Amino acid sequence: MTRLRVHTSERSCMIDITPQVRRVVDASGVQSGICLVYVPHTTAGVTVNEGADPAVVEDILTHLEKLVPRGAAYRHEEGNSAAHIKATLVGQSAEILVESRQLVLGTWQAIFLCEFDGPREREVLVKVVSG
Amino acid sequence: MTRLRVHTSERSCMIDITPQVRRVVDASGVQSGICLVYVPHTTAGVTVNEGADPAVVEDILTHLEKLVPRGAAYRHEEGNSAAHIKATLVGQSAEILVESRQLVLGTWQAIFLCEFDGPREREVLVKVVSG
Amino acid sequence: MTRLRVHTSERSCMIDITPQVRRVVDASGVQSGICLVYVPHTTAGVTVNEGADPAVVEDILTHLEKLVPRGAAYRHEEGNSAAHIKATLVGQSAEILVESRQLVLGTWQAIFLCEFDGPREREVLVKVVSG
Repeated sequence: MTRLRVHTSERSCMIDITPQVRRVVDASGVQSGICLVYVPHTTAGVTVNEGADPAVVEDILTHLEKLVPRGAAYRHEEGNSAAHIKATLVGQSAEILVESRQLVLGTWQAIFLCEFDGPREREVLVKVVSG
Repeated sequence: MTRLRVHTSERSCMIDITPQVRRVVDASGVQSGICLVYVPHTTAGVTVNEGADPAVVEDILTHLEKLVPRGAAYRHEEGNSAAHIKATLVGQSAEILVESRQLVLGTWQAIFLCEFDGPREREVLVKVVSG
Repeated sequence: MTRLRVHTSERSCMIDITPQVRRVVDASGVQSGICLVYVPHTTAGVTVNEGADPAVVEDILTHLEKLVPRGAAYRHEEGNSAAHIKATLVGQSAEILVESRQLVLGTWQAIFLCEFDGPREREVLVKVVSG
């Protein structure tokens, strides 16, 4: 298991962590298997989506805010319920194939940490299992 | 594979199953790997979110109901389409790292069975693979 | 790793790929483990939901369109932002247990490729790890 540290600088943002995950896969020496990318947080998520045009990330974040507005009436008193809800909608992990010692991503795919309650210092756990 | 039985007592609720999953990981003897927590149902899901303040769970369930209201117009005649849709939004599984024979969860993280069409007797399948 | 080819014939549709995934599991010879079903695309997803009544699939697709309408104002200029957002909500993979050389699915569960920007030729990657 490798623990990546990721700094997020806005309340809501998506950080492309593909290069860091690739390095972990490379260092693992695993020829073929599955790579698990996991956030140990409850107001952040992990997703795989387009990394080429930053407008896609903006559209995802803007639309999630429309679906789960920060200012709606929630019971949780820390004021970050919207971030918890977004985390459950997006999910806290991604599972990606490893073949020939490489992550198998589609042409346009990148792996993102999704911050919904930043700015913060976040961790991402990466594990490669062989099989 | 271990089959957990979970009783749900409301139409919509989230049941913290972390202790049961921990016991499966412990009994598996797996030193390092991935734990898969899976619901073999189509109107329930699995998520990882905050286990400390029950208001978070309430906010998640209330907001999911707002996004996917039970009373909207659906075609499926069993009347539980909203539950099917919520299941797809939340997802039917969680994948969690295992290190030193323990689940690696964040400080605030708990594993929840999400019931969207209860009350029912549900099953949760837990599998630990080594790697 | 096996690469399935899936033809989608509508803009939005869900294709039951359970038989193809079963064949990959069968051919893998893996006795016990985890099967990863993954789309290497950014405007498609994978979900597990009811395969018996096609009205469920229709309700899921119709409701996703309500939550993320194609015609809303987005920044991404290719005009398929809604598809990207749906992909992140649904997720790009499913993880399913394998026991006794068989996929362990619930009675009503089927595995679906979710097309959100078709019609297209899509790929689905399937990997079975033993453990």
